[in-house]
Amino acid sequence: MLENTIAEIGPLDESAMTAARQLQERLTKPAGSLGALEDLSVRLAGLAGMCPPPLPTPAAVAIFAGDHGVHAQRVTPWPQEVTAQMVGNFLAGGAVVNAFARQAGASVAVVDVGVANPLPGLDSDDEGGDGTPRLVSAAVRRGTRDMTVTAALTRDEARAAVEVGIRIAGDLIDAGAGILLTGDMGIANTTPAAALIAAFTGVDAAEATGRGTGVDDPTYQHKIEVVRSALRRHTPDPADPLGVLATVGGLEHAALTGLVLGAAARRVPVLLDGVIAVSAALAAAAFAPDAVGAMVAGHRSAEPGATIALRRLGLDPLIDLGLRLGEGTGALLALPVVTGAVRVLHEVATFDSAGVAEK
Amino acid sequence: MLENTIAEIGPLDESAMTAARQLQERLTKPAGSLGALEDLSVRLAGLAGMCPPPLPTPAAVAIFAGDHGVHAQRVTPWPQEVTAQMVGNFLAGGAVVNAFARQAGASVAVVDVGVANPLPGLDSDDEGGDGTPRLVSAAVRRGTRDMTVTAALTRDEARAAVEVGIRIAGDLIDAGAGILLTGDMGIANTTPAAALIAAFTGVDAAEATGRGTGVDDPTYQHKIEVVRSALRRHTPDPADPLGVLATVGGLEHAALTGLVLGAAARRVPVLLDGVIAVSAALAAAAFAPDAVGAMVAGHRSAEPGATIALRRLGLDPLIDLGLRLGEGTGALLALPVVTGAVRVLHEVATFDSAGVAEK
Repeated sequence: MLENTIAEIGPLDESAMTAARQLQERLTKPAGSLGALEDLSVRLAGLAGMCPPPLPTPAAVAIFAGDHGVHAQRVTPWPQEVTAQMVGNFLAGGAVVNAFARQAGASVAVVDVGVANPLPGLDSDDEGGDGTPRLVSAAVRRGTRDMTVTAALTRDEARAAVEVGIRIAGDLIDAGAGILLTGDMGIANTTPAAALIAAFTGVDAAEATGRGTGVDDPTYQHKIEVVRSALRRHTPDPADPLGVLATVGGLEHAALTGLVLGAAARRVPVLLDGVIAVSAALAAAAFAPDAVGAMVAGHRSAEPGATIALRRLGLDPLIDLGLRLGEGTGALLALPVVTGAVRVLHEVATFDSAGVAEK
Repeated sequence: MLENTIAEIGPLDESAMTAARQLQERLTKPAGSLGALEDLSVRLAGLAGMCPPPLPTPAAVAIFAGDHGVHAQRVTPWPQEVTAQMVGNFLAGGAVVNAFARQAGASVAVVDVGVANPLPGLDSDDEGGDGTPRLVSAAVRRGTRDMTVTAALTRDEARAAVEVGIRIAGDLIDAGAGILLTGDMGIANTTPAAALIAAFTGVDAAEATGRGTGVDDPTYQHKIEVVRSALRRHTPDPADPLGVLATVGGLEHAALTGLVLGAAARRVPVLLDGVIAVSAALAAAAFAPDAVGAMVAGHRSAEPGATIALRRLGLDPLIDLGLRLGEGTGALLALPVVTGAVRVLHEVATFDSAGVAEK
C-alpha cells in the first residue's frame, strides 16, 4: 500500500496554476493585495488540477494517539496515562481541539495507533454521530520501545503505522472530506519529533529539541541529550524514511506520515498542525518529494524544530501565535484562512462583471 | 456625543482578568500552550468585566467609505470613481470582504461618510435583509479637501465624522453585535493614513508611507513628499486628535476613530483591519488611552505604517500574511482566532472535570 500510494503522488498542475494566477488578476482588488492567500489559492488549484479548486470543505481532523518508550527517560513531567485520558477527553468533546473543531464545523476522528494504557470505558469504532468524535482502534503496538535502548519500532511496525495513516486518509476522503487536518496526542512525543527533524535536516539535537509542554531547564538539557543519544545509537539515514521512523520515530508520527501521503495521492490538501505534524511531513517528503504540494502549514509551533522543518519543506505557516498544544488546534485555527483563500476564486466579482474601473 | 463617549471609557477589570488567568491554568492543556490566545482571552475578560467573557458573536463589519482631496496630487493610479464603484460592489456582495463575511457569518454595513461620486443606483438605508450588506448614508461632505493646500476637514466636519462612527457602533451593538470589525474604502486613503501615523507617532513621512495598492517607485517617492508637505503645512499636534484628523485625516479615518471609541465605551471588542484602521486607532487612543483595551489587532498590513502604529498601540496582530487590501478583510480572517480564544474559556474541560492527571 505504501509503494502504491507513493507512486500516485505527482506534481502540481501548471495549467491550473496559471489559470488561477490569471483569475486573481481580474478580481476586484489590487493585484497581489491578498498576499499569501493568493499564492495559496494558486497552489491549491495546481493540486486539484482545476481553477477554481473545490472549496476545502468539509474538513476532517484525524488525531493519531500513541505512547513512547522514551518516556522512561523522564523527558517530560507528565505521566504516560495522560495520553489515554486525553483520548477520553477528545471523545467526550472536552479538549481544545473539540472546541475549535465545533467552531470550524470540522469532524474529528481519534485514531488509537498505539496508546499504552487502556482507554477509559470506550467502545471502539464508535460511529460518533451528532458531531462527537469517532474512535478508530488501529494500534500497531501499545507504545514504542525506548529509542535510547533499541529501535522504537521494527520496520514492519513503522510500515504498518504509516499504512494506518494512508487508510484513514482514504476513508476520510471517501466520506467526502475536502481537506484533512493533522492532529496528535502522545505524552513525550516532542522527543521523537525532535529526533526526526534532526535526522531529516541534519541539524544538531540542541537545535531541533524544544521544551514541549514547557519543561524546566534541567529536563530540557536532559531531553537534548536523550535525542542526541538516540541519534548516535541509530545514525538514521534520511534517504531511508521508513528506517528513520522506525529507529527514532513514533507511531503517531508514522501514521501522520501516511495521512500526508494518502492525502497527496488523492490530491486533497492536508493542513499541518505543529511540530509533530511537520516532523512527519519531513518523512512524507522523503518518501515522495511531490507530497509537499499537498501540504499547507497551519501554524508555526513555538517548538524550535517546527521552524527548522518548515524551512526545509519550503512552507510558510499561516498562523504564528506561539501555540504549542498540538491535537490539531493550530491547523483548525488556520482552516478559515485556507477556505477563504479558495473562496475568493469562487465568489469575488471581476472588474468587468462589477463595472469597477482599473488603474 | 464625543466627550460623553470618551468619559465612558475605562480601564480593564482586573478581577475578571485574574479569574480568566486562573481558569486558563485549570483547563486540560499545558499552561501557556495556547500562546497569544490565552493573553487575548484574559484581556477580553477584563473588557467585559466577567469570566468567561461573552462569545464575540454575532460579528458586524462596518465599512466606512470616503474620498480624498489629496487624490488630485496623483498619489495613486486608481481613478476616484472606484470608491463609489466599490461601494456598489460591496452592496452587490461581490468584493473580497463579502466573501469573507459570508464565510465568517458576519453582517456588513457600508457607511457612506463622504464618497465624492454618486453611488450607482442604490437606495440609501436599504435594510439589506437576507445577508446582503446594508447602506447607511451619513456623508459629512463629498470627500475631503486637499490636505497639501488646506485642512482636509474643518474641526466641525471631523467631529461630525467621528460621531458618525460612534453612532454606528451604538446602533450595531444595540442590534446585538458582540464584536465590531473595522472596514474602509477610499481611493487614496493610505496617504492620509500615513500622515496620521506620522503625526501621532513622530516618525518621518518616509517611514510611515507605503505603496498602498502597489504604486511604482516614482509615485511612491512623490507620495512621501505629499505626506511630508501636508505635515509641514499643518504641523498637527498629537495631543489634539480632532485637529490631527481635521488637518491631515479623512472622513473614513475619523469615522473609524468614532467606531473604536463607541465600541470601547460599550466595552465591546473592536477588531482592527489594516493601516487605515490602525491610523484611526491612534487617534482613538489619543482621545482616550483606555480605548486600547477594546482593540484587537486583526492583522499586520503590508503597509509599513501599520507596524509603526501597532507598536505604538502595544498590539500584536493575529494574522501576518502580507495583506494590503483593506475593506475589513484582514479583520475577518482573524475573527475565528478571537472567537476561538474566548470559546476555550467556555467549552474546554478542566483537569478535574475530565479526570486528566496533571504533571
